[in-house]
Parts: sequence; C-alpha cells; structure tokens
Amino acid sequence: MTHPELARMRDSIDNLDAALIYLLAERFKVTQRVGVLKADLGLPPADPAREEEQIARLRSLASTAGLDPEFAEKFLNFIVAEVVQHHRTIARGGHVG
Amino acid sequence: MTHPELARMRDSIDNLDAALIYLLAERFKVTQRVGVLKADLGLPPADPAREEEQIARLRSLASTAGLDPEFAEKFLNFIVAEVVQHHRTIARGGHVG
Repeated sequence: MTHPELARMRDSIDNLDAALIYLLAERFKVTQRVGVLKADLGLPPADPAREEEQIARLRSLASTAGLDPEFAEKFLNFIVAEVVQHHRTIARGGHVG
Repeated sequence: MTHPELARMRDSIDNLDAALIYLLAERFKVTQRVGVLKADLGLPPADPAREEEQIARLRSLASTAGLDPEFAEKFLNFIVAEVVQHHRTIARGGHVG
C-alpha cells in the first residue's frame, strides 16, 4: 500500500499535471494560429530574436517562482522545438494534429 | 514592426508561459517533498508502475484537451527525468535548488 502522505502528494501532482496539460493544449492552439499567420505572411517558422526574449523572461519568472532557471530554459526549448516542427508542417501546406 | 495580430497572439503565449512556469514551480515543490519522503522511507527514486499510470492518464487528458497524446507523453518523460535526477540528489544526501 502506498504511504498516505505519498498518496496525498501524488494527488496534488496529478491535479497540477491536468492543469499543465490543459494550458499546453491552449498554448498549441495559439501557436497553431501563429503558424498559419506566419505562413500567410511568408515569415520563417523560427524567430531567434523572439526566442531569446522568451528565454530571458522565463528565466526571470522562474527565479521569482523558485524554479531552476536552467530548467525553465530547457522547458521552453522543448516546447519551441515542437512548435517549430508544427510551423514547418503548416508552411509546407500540411496541417497539425 | 511586428504584425498586430502576431503581437496579440504572442501576448497570449507569454501569459500562458507565465502560468506554466508557476505551475511547474509548484509541481517541483511537491516532488521535492516526495523525494525527501521516499528517501526517508528507503523507496527508490523512480517508480515505473506509477509512471505508467501517469502516462495513460495524461494521454487521455491530452486527447480531451485537443493536445497530441504523443506530445503529452514526451512532456511527462521530460519532467520525470528532471524529478528523478532531483530524487537521486536527495537520496545521496544532497539538496536541490
């Protein structure tokens, strides 16, 4: 049997994960629209200047929140890699998900 | 100058990212406590059975939310890799962040 305190913590983790999944779904809905707009405007899928700003901002937010800024940067890179892949698919005239 | 619709979408992405960072910070606060409890109880840092349950649950939530279940699974693996690394540090008597 799972230790009751461990079970309680896991319930909290499961709640936080559900919230994270719903926020990520919403984020990809927005980046999907960004991808369509960029393709319409003939803009490249990746935007290094924008990504640098995002990294600096998220590292700063992470410090405030007590999260390792290195992890926040890795997290953004992880998300952006997926987004750029979606945008390339859209630019090729395909569609995502 | 940035296209005004692109600028608006980026504002939404920035808001969602701030929410994601704060939720991740909270999630690591909880897993940090899980790590301490597991070390106290002599439990191993990784728990494959629990991870399988989490993956199945998050894939199902992702489908409901319109997020690619493959991505949800990659996301959980990404987070869990970081958590297990923290737990190993705690088990060795170190501390995280």
